[in-house]
Amino acid sequence: MFFEGSEKKATIIVERDQLSLLTDIADEFWQQLVQCADAHILSSIENMHCKAFLLSESSLFVWHDRLLIITCGNTRLVRSVEYFIQQMGVDCIAQVSYQRKNEYFAHAQPSTFGDDIKLLARHVTGKAHRFGELDSHHNYIFHQQNDFQALESDKTYELLAYQIGEIASKKLTSSDLTAAEIRAFLQLEELFIDFVFDDFVFKPYGYSINAIKDKQYFTIHVTPQEHSSYVSIESNINLIALAPMFLKILAPKSFDLLSFNEFEFSDLASEYIPENYVATSLVQQHLSNNYFVCFANYILPQQHFMQAKALDSVEQSHAL
Amino acid sequence: MFFEGSEKKATIIVERDQLSLLTDIADEFWQQLVQCADAHILSSIENMHCKAFLLSESSLFVWHDRLLIITCGNTRLVRSVEYFIQQMGVDCIAQVSYQRKNEYFAHAQPSTFGDDIKLLARHVTGKAHRFGELDSHHNYIFHQQNDFQALESDKTYELLAYQIGEIASKKLTSSDLTAAEIRAFLQLEELFIDFVFDDFVFKPYGYSINAIKDKQYFTIHVTPQEHSSYVSIESNINLIALAPMFLKILAPKSFDLLSFNEFEFSDLASEYIPENYVATSLVQQHLSNNYFVCFANYILPQQHFMQAKALDSVEQSHAL
Repeated sequence: MFFEGSEKKATIIVERDQLSLLTDIADEFWQQLVQCADAHILSSIENMHCKAFLLSESSLFVWHDRLLIITCGNTRLVRSVEYFIQQMGVDCIAQVSYQRKNEYFAHAQPSTFGDDIKLLARHVTGKAHRFGELDSHHNYIFHQQNDFQALESDKTYELLAYQIGEIASKKLTSSDLTAAEIRAFLQLEELFIDFVFDDFVFKPYGYSINAIKDKQYFTIHVTPQEHSSYVSIESNINLIALAPMFLKILAPKSFDLLSFNEFEFSDLASEYIPENYVATSLVQQHLSNNYFVCFANYILPQQHFMQAKALDSVEQSHAL
Repeated sequence: MFFEGSEKKATIIVERDQLSLLTDIADEFWQQLVQCADAHILSSIENMHCKAFLLSESSLFVWHDRLLIITCGNTRLVRSVEYFIQQMGVDCIAQVSYQRKNEYFAHAQPSTFGDDIKLLARHVTGKAHRFGELDSHHNYIFHQQNDFQALESDKTYELLAYQIGEIASKKLTSSDLTAAEIRAFLQLEELFIDFVFDDFVFKPYGYSINAIKDKQYFTIHVTPQEHSSYVSIESNINLIALAPMFLKILAPKSFDLLSFNEFEFSDLASEYIPENYVATSLVQQHLSNNYFVCFANYILPQQHFMQAKALDSVEQSHAL
């Protein structure tokens, strides 16, 4: 079965003196916003800092001063961003950023990144960068150009794993798997002690989890389908330090690391990335909104020949 | 400037006792066939074994028993194949194969590989395979399933270089470059002695060359544009043995090798591929038409961080 796991991601930071997204906005607004991207809310958890919504396609996190929304599949996330701008007005917005990674099946997407930022440019002035080579994994990041400056302490991380190993793929595609079994397989309860979890197992497979503890959050989305498997992890906890654990469990053939304001990226990568992976791409850029962005793609060098993948008619019609 | 260098490729082998493509078919037929893909013939060279047409988008080679057509850009090569089948009839066809590599800008293509083979399936029964991972470089190959069996001596090679080095990119994008200067830069006249060459320099840049000598042929197509540069070489001369020379000149960040009926692929790769490149993908498959196909993708591990690519409006509208 074909499913595009690759995500689009948007962050909107508001002028904190004008409103709190966490206390001033009713859930109906978030329902509407999510619907604009053709997704819907499955469930939510909250604490005094954050409300985390699990979506039919990924996640929405709302804090007092910002929201983070991640959607996969064929969603049109940019429409949610446009909805927010239109409903709330640009004056209360301190910063909009919009990010999109290269998809497995780009031609099946309803829009390109170019289309999306043309739409955003009607509302906000900004600049786009590509992190990574065009013929390999890459991320496009658009950020609004204004006087907003991110705090250096505002650090977030992404770990994106591709082509997970046979053990992980087999486990995560086995039938009647429960959320508890997946949490155990990913060792989440051992690793993230005292976090509140909210997770969901999709049919026939696929898994999403949101987790919060005070100001810490993480979200994981699993698309375990063979040949186009993808696991994304986003957090404000240092995922470079956690990479060895996740890489051991998932055994991906390739993975990306992306960080915002992690100034020790290079040293951390040297310390934590297992030596059997090699970097095919290393990119860093200081954006005008004061985010220092690092991107790296790593691959597992191959020693042995595999057989080609014979394509069946389902793949031919959906995936190519 | 954006140009999709990635090619589609088709081979049609005919029943030799029924006709000779070289002597029984007028040039007007080839003009028509090429036009079906939205390309046109620029020039041609020939000897007693082969006629090689240089096209506005790549090349057409015609031998007594087969044709090879390679087209890049936004051409619809599958329509040329359909034209051949419709005009000549399936009875004179021994084998059709159709191949397509992943594009830099898949969403900008007028059709997908899936669309193309659905069209082919109206005329011939066949099977498609994918060589290489979905999230990385890969080739789709469709071949007709019938009683045709390729000779083991029928060997061909492709060397596809991506993200060529700064020296090569600068040289090949310099203005008013002549064909002779490009031949010299690529050392073609030293390497391919006594070949007849036919080449063309495109504006603002881009280069194509066909070359033949007795039964030997090669064709090279150069898309030197920074960030989406691509050089493809196809030949029945052993390109694995020639790889060190081309890799030294082009210094690509990544390259693919593809071979048909090269049974020593693995040993040759060990012998000739420079040790600074690592394999990210190794695939081999014996197809039912008796072609033993090998595919490998190699990358140059990165040690240093580069800056992100700032996207200008031209790239945003054309390339994303």
